[in-house]
Amino acid sequence: MSRRISDSTVRRLSHYLRALEELEGRHATTVSSDQLAARGGTTAAQVRKDLSHFGSFGKRGLGYSVAELAGRLRRILGVDRHWKVALVGAGRIGSALFEYPDFAARGFRLVAVLDRDPAKVGRVWGPVTISDISELERVVGERDIDLMILAVPGDAAQAIAERAVAAGARGLLNFAPTQLRVADDVPVTNVNLVMEMEALSFALTKDQTAS
Amino acid sequence: MSRRISDSTVRRLSHYLRALEELEGRHATTVSSDQLAARGGTTAAQVRKDLSHFGSFGKRGLGYSVAELAGRLRRILGVDRHWKVALVGAGRIGSALFEYPDFAARGFRLVAVLDRDPAKVGRVWGPVTISDISELERVVGERDIDLMILAVPGDAAQAIAERAVAAGARGLLNFAPTQLRVADDVPVTNVNLVMEMEALSFALTKDQTAS
Repeated sequence: MSRRISDSTVRRLSHYLRALEELEGRHATTVSSDQLAARGGTTAAQVRKDLSHFGSFGKRGLGYSVAELAGRLRRILGVDRHWKVALVGAGRIGSALFEYPDFAARGFRLVAVLDRDPAKVGRVWGPVTISDISELERVVGERDIDLMILAVPGDAAQAIAERAVAAGARGLLNFAPTQLRVADDVPVTNVNLVMEMEALSFALTKDQTAS
Repeated sequence: MSRRISDSTVRRLSHYLRALEELEGRHATTVSSDQLAARGGTTAAQVRKDLSHFGSFGKRGLGYSVAELAGRLRRILGVDRHWKVALVGAGRIGSALFEYPDFAARGFRLVAVLDRDPAKVGRVWGPVTISDISELERVVGERDIDLMILAVPGDAAQAIAERAVAAGARGLLNFAPTQLRVADDVPVTNVNLVMEMEALSFALTKDQTAS
């Protein structure tokens, strides 16, 4: 079923869950689709449509139960469990990611860090000791890694992705400016910060008509 | 015209430009839509459709001129110029962004850093001295800031976005887990690293059918 759910729908589900968790914090018991829509940057009709993919929620005129819908969205998004995550690349972006508090709060546990730089291998980051990239297969296997974050240069990313998947990693978050080619059943999300900036410069540039 | 171009099209244009620049580095003079498609993770037909939004390129059977198409895409994406960028938030993510070499290479020049922490204000980062957040309006005006990167907590982002736009910032790259509400003519791109991870956990979770 996941094939038919668009990336933008998934993004909105994440927003709805955040809204519900704020409401839980304020001990609210019900919420309307209008309230969820405001948080997701969308309309009440879109909220109802997004949720309808996953069954029946809420009662007409009564809204949704905050606790029930939050629990359901956690299960749908797969964040009612822990995921074991390895980070490849202990550079600036990698070290910022490693200390990013929201990952752990959401169940994404960084249990391994790898780098190719001998000067970094063996360093201790919190509970983790940085491993040499040559150890990738062993680390993925022994620590039962689910997800791999690639914060490596573009020319290294494809080979590391292939090794990671062959070793058992099931999904990849890619910071390298490269389109990774992996099997269709391995989800990949890409974060390319320069492309995000280019989306802004594009939107602000007038020279977009035929020359 | 930009209104009709989807975000995913813009993303592919960025990929095509990277492919063309690699080809320029290897002194290639022409490229086929098949070659560009491979780099953009798409099809040759999609490449031709994407480029057709912006006029006529290439000759049937001869492919595209690498230099001409690269130049045209730089103008379309607005990266044939410099953009002055301010970073708000000198935390871990902010400091990694500040040293991110690809921004400067693409013409995005970080010319100001602001933070609310008195312990950080006055520190010198390369050519930039960190300013107090209370100085935001002055900094945006005096340094003629085009784009603002928000690497601040979620509860601070909306107020800072409003101040930035009122002071003259024209586009926002938002790392806070908040949907910013600004005027329609101010483009906003969002980078939410936890939501990227959630897209992976969603794709790997089977419990997506009606309960």
